[in-house]
Amino acid sequence: MSNLRLLLLSNSTMAGEQWLGWPEPHIVDFLDTAVTSVFFIPFAGVRLSWDDYARQARERFGEMGYGLVSAHEATDPLAALESAGAVVIGGGNTYHLLNELYARGLLLAIRKRVLEGLPYVGWSAGSNVACPTIMTTNDMPVVEPPSFKALGLLPVQINPHFTDAQPPGLAGETRTDRLMEFIEVNPQVTVVGLPEGDLLHLEGYDLQLAGSHPARIFKKGKEPWDVQPGDPLEFLLS
Amino acid sequence: MSNLRLLLLSNSTMAGEQWLGWPEPHIVDFLDTAVTSVFFIPFAGVRLSWDDYARQARERFGEMGYGLVSAHEATDPLAALESAGAVVIGGGNTYHLLNELYARGLLLAIRKRVLEGLPYVGWSAGSNVACPTIMTTNDMPVVEPPSFKALGLLPVQINPHFTDAQPPGLAGETRTDRLMEFIEVNPQVTVVGLPEGDLLHLEGYDLQLAGSHPARIFKKGKEPWDVQPGDPLEFLLS
Repeated sequence: MSNLRLLLLSNSTMAGEQWLGWPEPHIVDFLDTAVTSVFFIPFAGVRLSWDDYARQARERFGEMGYGLVSAHEATDPLAALESAGAVVIGGGNTYHLLNELYARGLLLAIRKRVLEGLPYVGWSAGSNVACPTIMTTNDMPVVEPPSFKALGLLPVQINPHFTDAQPPGLAGETRTDRLMEFIEVNPQVTVVGLPEGDLLHLEGYDLQLAGSHPARIFKKGKEPWDVQPGDPLEFLLS
Repeated sequence: MSNLRLLLLSNSTMAGEQWLGWPEPHIVDFLDTAVTSVFFIPFAGVRLSWDDYARQARERFGEMGYGLVSAHEATDPLAALESAGAVVIGGGNTYHLLNELYARGLLLAIRKRVLEGLPYVGWSAGSNVACPTIMTTNDMPVVEPPSFKALGLLPVQINPHFTDAQPPGLAGETRTDRLMEFIEVNPQVTVVGLPEGDLLHLEGYDLQLAGSHPARIFKKGKEPWDVQPGDPLEFLLS
């Protein structure tokens, strides 16, 4: 029996659109009217101050009908987490986010609450930290967390902002090259390359891909392959 | 007094050219005829096997007039390092490279030899590990090294393959965004964004930029600015 509830978004915003534009209907559907207030984690913000990040998030979640308490301004963050209706982890720098979750004793506390059934919404870095490790992040390691181990809420790794497009004229590795390296070194772990505009939605043992693009699956010993929204994804949970 | 000798290349190869094409004259100039054989570090290779990587490197360095012993095939790597005329660290995955340098006890051994005057040639990941840490790598953390601390042969961080070009249609961070985050979190550390086709050449206290493009300097509290080959760079060493 599992009452895990995860909404893991590749990204917050499509180029040129409103912040949290495309995810809004998914978030409202997921949190529904049962949730009145969310616990927001702004720690992936580096140049965006946590005050500004929380203000932005409070405004948008307010428009969706939810109150918001930010972890950085709560006098007792663990109590705020305990009484929240959902946890929302924003994107930014994954290393910075994970480092703060460790430093503040929030990693295990969030994990415990989500395993008890607290709904979890994350985007980008906030989706990465739901995975066993942050080893499929695209970010620069601007700070060194105590470990790459993350929340481990699902058994696969997400690569957010998945694309195989290269900046013109550059000879470096494609994203596919990087993820093929990951499964070479970590042959027991499957990766979901989640393009912008896509999300993974987990309800207990039911995992769904939603969005406008196929996602790409990387598994050691196989050629990477695409799955479409609606395709059966149980194999990712076993 | 310092007899440090470093040749730190952004990249091995320009798109469409021969492997180690553009760096060849720089390497031959740097190693000259005083060096007969180099100690090669293939550990950044992940999907490229170390045997294949060493074979490739042996062929190209042979064409330049140098013998090559690869660290992974030496029966006594530390003795091979001791007797080599230079150390050459190839590119690939920076985390994988650093992890192996730690695991094999080579990190401190290489540092000691290079501080004694052993010429050092690196490209991409091989230039990143010459820095204080690997925190300005572009790579994916496919393996977790014991620490981000690296060889610390120069006081600044290099960002290899520096570019501000974005894959079309993607809303994510530019390289500049990422490096601005780095100096935000590490305000005491300067970064050199080294575009492909460029290198840093250190002889004792003389640091030169060479190549066909300006490099971009990131320093906390200043707007990033460009330096040209030939510009004075002493400020990077103080």
